[in-house]
Amino acid sequence: MTTTQPRPEEQDLPFNVFARACPSRSTLEHVTGRWGALTLGALSEGSLRFNELRRRVDGVSEKMLSQTLHALERDGLVHREAQLTNPPRVDYELTPLGREVAQRLLSLIRCVEDSMDTVLEARERYDAARGAR
Amino acid sequence: MTTTQPRPEEQDLPFNVFARACPSRSTLEHVTGRWGALTLGALSEGSLRFNELRRRVDGVSEKMLSQTLHALERDGLVHREAQLTNPPRVDYELTPLGREVAQRLLSLIRCVEDSMDTVLEARERYDAARGAR
Repeated sequence: MTTTQPRPEEQDLPFNVFARACPSRSTLEHVTGRWGALTLGALSEGSLRFNELRRRVDGVSEKMLSQTLHALERDGLVHREAQLTNPPRVDYELTPLGREVAQRLLSLIRCVEDSMDTVLEARERYDAARGAR
Repeated sequence: MTTTQPRPEEQDLPFNVFARACPSRSTLEHVTGRWGALTLGALSEGSLRFNELRRRVDGVSEKMLSQTLHALERDGLVHREAQLTNPPRVDYELTPLGREVAQRLLSLIRCVEDSMDTVLEARERYDAARGAR
């Protein structure tokens, strides 16, 4: 179809993760990145303090967890609650939007976990076929 | 709790992405990695040839798409079909397991895309609060 109609301005286009410049792509990356996904998954069980989160997300460094939480807070998915106690206490919890996103992410995580027998069989077949060449 | 009970063998534990050494963590990363997620999303619309996929996944390099497809094929999520034509033709499509995983991934992607107005407002508030300090 040829048309002389002008392209709509960027802000009129629907958000689309397949488009390189769409801001939804960075949010998807914050949500699905290695530490983002595990952090949202951990917080879906309830609010946690930084060190509790760090233990739950096995293998994350302090710096990476801190960066991950900043990105999720900036996107409005995680709420940071600092209490003026001594020593100060900081809790992290999902926002309503964060809960919606985490619910879908957990459905995906459970699907992957439940599929691992099939995945490991597929890996064995793939490696055997490659080795036999 | 102290116990002398031996740890269960790894294969007896349920798959758990929160555990650093669990193989489900690498599969989750193949599925949710930047290019893995977009590749599964693109293939959920039907089988595609390599160059069609590359156009659909805006911004991916030939090398990264090739690596992504190998990882997804090895995990049993994508099927590679080479036809003995001249020139040879290679199609990629989701396996039944790949379709199950992609369905949940697309639900997450749509949720993120539909939430972007809220996300962008949150980013503005976050940046304004930081700038005001």
